[in-house]
Amino acid sequence: MKKAVPAVSGILVGFLAATVFFADFTTQGTSTSATPTGEKSTAEKVYIPFGQQDEYYMFASGGHSGQLFVYGVPSMRRIRTVPVFSPDSATGYGFDKETKEMLGGFRWGDFHHPAFSEKNGEYDGKYMFATDVANNRVAVMDLSTFVVKDILKVPNTVGPHCAAFVTQNSEYLFLPTRFSAPIGQQYASLDDYKTKYNGFMSAVKMNEKTKKLEVAWQVKLPPWSYDLSDAGKKVSGDWAVVTTYNTEEATTNMEINASQKDRDYILLFNWRELEKMVREGKADTINGVKIIDPLKVKSGLYLVPVAKSPHGVDVTPDGKRFIASGKLAPAMTVFSFEKAFEAIKNNKITEQVKGIPVLDYASVMEREVNPENALGPLHTQFDDKGMAYTTMFISSEIVKWDPNTGKTLDRVPVQYSPGHSVSAEGDSVSPDGRYIVALNKLAKDTYLSVGPSHPESMQLIDLASDKMRVIQSAPVDPEPHYAQMIKADKIKTIEVYPKDETNPNAVYQQKNARIERKGNEVHVYGLAMRSKFIFDDKAKRKDTIEVKEGDKVVIHLTNVDFDEDITHGFGINGYDQDIEVQPGETKTLEFVANKAGTFPLYCTNFCSALHQEMNGYLLVQPK
Amino acid sequence: MKKAVPAVSGILVGFLAATVFFADFTTQGTSTSATPTGEKSTAEKVYIPFGQQDEYYMFASGGHSGQLFVYGVPSMRRIRTVPVFSPDSATGYGFDKETKEMLGGFRWGDFHHPAFSEKNGEYDGKYMFATDVANNRVAVMDLSTFVVKDILKVPNTVGPHCAAFVTQNSEYLFLPTRFSAPIGQQYASLDDYKTKYNGFMSAVKMNEKTKKLEVAWQVKLPPWSYDLSDAGKKVSGDWAVVTTYNTEEATTNMEINASQKDRDYILLFNWRELEKMVREGKADTINGVKIIDPLKVKSGLYLVPVAKSPHGVDVTPDGKRFIASGKLAPAMTVFSFEKAFEAIKNNKITEQVKGIPVLDYASVMEREVNPENALGPLHTQFDDKGMAYTTMFISSEIVKWDPNTGKTLDRVPVQYSPGHSVSAEGDSVSPDGRYIVALNKLAKDTYLSVGPSHPESMQLIDLASDKMRVIQSAPVDPEPHYAQMIKADKIKTIEVYPKDETNPNAVYQQKNARIERKGNEVHVYGLAMRSKFIFDDKAKRKDTIEVKEGDKVVIHLTNVDFDEDITHGFGINGYDQDIEVQPGETKTLEFVANKAGTFPLYCTNFCSALHQEMNGYLLVQPK
Repeated sequence: MKKAVPAVSGILVGFLAATVFFADFTTQGTSTSATPTGEKSTAEKVYIPFGQQDEYYMFASGGHSGQLFVYGVPSMRRIRTVPVFSPDSATGYGFDKETKEMLGGFRWGDFHHPAFSEKNGEYDGKYMFATDVANNRVAVMDLSTFVVKDILKVPNTVGPHCAAFVTQNSEYLFLPTRFSAPIGQQYASLDDYKTKYNGFMSAVKMNEKTKKLEVAWQVKLPPWSYDLSDAGKKVSGDWAVVTTYNTEEATTNMEINASQKDRDYILLFNWRELEKMVREGKADTINGVKIIDPLKVKSGLYLVPVAKSPHGVDVTPDGKRFIASGKLAPAMTVFSFEKAFEAIKNNKITEQVKGIPVLDYASVMEREVNPENALGPLHTQFDDKGMAYTTMFISSEIVKWDPNTGKTLDRVPVQYSPGHSVSAEGDSVSPDGRYIVALNKLAKDTYLSVGPSHPESMQLIDLASDKMRVIQSAPVDPEPHYAQMIKADKIKTIEVYPKDETNPNAVYQQKNARIERKGNEVHVYGLAMRSKFIFDDKAKRKDTIEVKEGDKVVIHLTNVDFDEDITHGFGINGYDQDIEVQPGETKTLEFVANKAGTFPLYCTNFCSALHQEMNGYLLVQPK
Repeated sequence: MKKAVPAVSGILVGFLAATVFFADFTTQGTSTSATPTGEKSTAEKVYIPFGQQDEYYMFASGGHSGQLFVYGVPSMRRIRTVPVFSPDSATGYGFDKETKEMLGGFRWGDFHHPAFSEKNGEYDGKYMFATDVANNRVAVMDLSTFVVKDILKVPNTVGPHCAAFVTQNSEYLFLPTRFSAPIGQQYASLDDYKTKYNGFMSAVKMNEKTKKLEVAWQVKLPPWSYDLSDAGKKVSGDWAVVTTYNTEEATTNMEINASQKDRDYILLFNWRELEKMVREGKADTINGVKIIDPLKVKSGLYLVPVAKSPHGVDVTPDGKRFIASGKLAPAMTVFSFEKAFEAIKNNKITEQVKGIPVLDYASVMEREVNPENALGPLHTQFDDKGMAYTTMFISSEIVKWDPNTGKTLDRVPVQYSPGHSVSAEGDSVSPDGRYIVALNKLAKDTYLSVGPSHPESMQLIDLASDKMRVIQSAPVDPEPHYAQMIKADKIKTIEVYPKDETNPNAVYQQKNARIERKGNEVHVYGLAMRSKFIFDDKAKRKDTIEVKEGDKVVIHLTNVDFDEDITHGFGINGYDQDIEVQPGETKTLEFVANKAGTFPLYCTNFCSALHQEMNGYLLVQPK
């Protein structure tokens, strides 16, 4: 690396880890009064009166909650919690047959990065993708219903932290691994780390027709940690970039041992070319997956040196540059895709590392940017003028700067320690430049205390004038690692599920409600309506299910209230069973009646003045 | 019943169930501008600038989420989600040994009513109690940590919907049952409902020293549904009141069959007297529980007729009156405790029902209140002047009225269909009269759409002037059935868990971190600190746990960062294990290593600039 960027010394590393610096915020305006010029007061900027709605949806990852949090912006009100990777008592997610199978028995997830589907580099408002660092899964949510449609457990993929990020026409989402492990997570001693462990990157596709996810192909990578990533846009549309750390290949005490070298790499790859190699049979097939080995192919993958342990790497809206943030070095580095393409063409290769050519730093780097006393740069977002906003974890601020010149334009303190940030339509080819939200890791005493464990904090920053202004602080459950913000009118939801007369489990007319016994299986075809359950229209008690101990009980339940906002719940007291049926929806609940007795069943979702009377019984006769 | 209140006819019942009426809200102010008089604008009234904090905590039940939602008022920001009756991926609640055992294997809960502990009828800010309608449990949360300390599964208790409510010095919390069932939920045909099914009421106590809950005694009740309840205060401090419905003892099609009679009852009981009977040996002992049978005792329990299918019953702050709300009758009925005591003394008994004397309605009733066109009264709260605020589910409004005169004082539309409401310190002997929050069941198009399923909605109403004003709408997850609001300065939280040198599982010094094998059990005594795990200080890799397939693994983990807001998570990739250790806390995770392989472990809670490096491995050698 010809021009080293300033690196934080080893001693300082420990110090940084234990201490949080706070930028001076004595000048931060907290007045709520309207200005004399008639501008809205801070309070009024975030207030949505009844009858009006928010301008943007913000979809924030819920981290180790396994959930997605949906907020309205600018009010910063949390409108919905969508369960994704963990079961949910509130909606019966993980209890009905379909979602139980989809969750695969896992009790928790670690939802890292959300990504909207894109068309021509714009969010199209159709789907949201998500990845699970805990149990190596990827999910897709349908934005017409806000419900997860598929979850895929991705083989050879250990902690897809830097995903999901999608290409500009949603051809792929890529999942590089944060952790290295032997293929298939087989056992191998850490003494054999360099030879038996690997990183992986998976190219996942969604079948638009079935809404199912599938692994298209994978790339075997050196045993490093792969951190954040971004897909190219326009001129760089066939490319993607990923940060790496622990290129030291350390196996213990990572805070010291993975921070030894003064540089790590950005991994650049041309997915169009890799896809072509797979088509041409240049990939190995291991356990049914096509895997590209960099040692066996000559192109498609490149490394660029970068200041040690980078966190974020972000492609500018015009697709011309990618910006890496130092984490342990107080600098952002601006790289040029065009210079990188030129360097590849002209073979500006300094060495080969594990079969991957390393591009000459100076030939690709455009500018190193080092705002005074700004520490811990993590992640960059953009506005409508192409200006960059980088979160500073250690100095607790957002710095606005010009990627064309490196000039610092503005700084605003945030409370405290921002990880990511998200600007309005900020990962698209045309950010809105309206708002940016800092996703802060520490709240300290920002809110009323809720014990030793504090909430995280999100702060809304107004970008309407040249001077950034924090206008709202919203506490948030663990833990938004990243978010995306989309114009409200891009999301088109349905109000009720349409009737599906071809669904053999659905019952839309009371006269068709019935209970059928097949051996020791009892199949219930029932319906829910304000304010009763009908399981068997011919029975003396239509709202009772009576079975024998040991029977397998299969309950198909249709909500026949085709009416906005009339969701019914179905819970069985003492039997630990719980599902939800939204207006027009049919769900299936399966369980074995392994306990004899009398168990009231009831609607859990308040649905009418007689909701309280919407109950019946599950009776299980003893053997 | 001498003077029948107007009852809704059977035909109208079906109509009400299917239709929601909306009150006219064209006059509702939505302006955000400051008034010329200098009064704060609506937006400013709910805006808390950085550096200031909310005035009140609101603790809202999360219904079938099984969780508790903690809000700040007036900002209506949700500060914390506390898992209570269902496991929680975000905090590892239900994953560590202690909370896993506490949850008892249940995957969901239906948190109905929260209740603060009280001293002299005032919230004392020490504990919060909660009940679970789904799986018949009661919980206690410590308000110094916001963590659940105990959960008790209450025998013979089927759907404790109307609980928890506590007596004025927290002597008891009472859990009457919404559903009737045979004792111990044994099997019995619904044909034998009148003879074999019963309601129950449980008196539960907390042992202040151990923080454990226990059943003190129970009362066997007729097979009706017991709905809402309240404990007496001051003059009525030894008493409590419970609404009933389905005194018809119907077993099917409840929306019609449980609404046949034009009256149900309020159950009054003198818990001091019942407690004495138990002491005097007048209770039966069934399955180890002392149970009072009304057929065998002569006093302590009374019924008062009330307009059909009442929902709420609420004791006035002065303890002199209780107010029942009609649900299916458009009236609130004001009863007098003093008149009831007089009626009991003078034996004004009209009949005995299932061994319980029925007091003469006219002798106890003080006033029937029927605001014009106000439909579906459910629940009443109070202000500092003793004025009553009743939610109207069907006409979607809150009506303010004077219990002394029955006069309607004010009405405000809410959006839409309020169930309960909560006023500041509203269940205490001295409500604050500052705010009331309507807990609305339907949001319709109040917020950006999130699909066929909508959030519920909470609306904050300012009581500063004689005219109620809705000043904020906050979407909320399913489903706040009830809430309590407490002055912020009453809650005293701790910042970090104190060191407990007597805890054999805790490790506060790195040199004591160790792994001990006992047969096929591996015991890890480890610690978490910014930014590493230390499991075995003497090992080559201190942050690796290596075991054999089939071993039982017991990991004790202490967070030695005694520093505000520095929580560590501990997740094992691919092993579905996840716990959280708050500052200073020690937790235990137990599991069987039933899968060989390589599994990275990592900190899930962002804790420092080197959080990403806080990882190690669980290695499971194959058999």
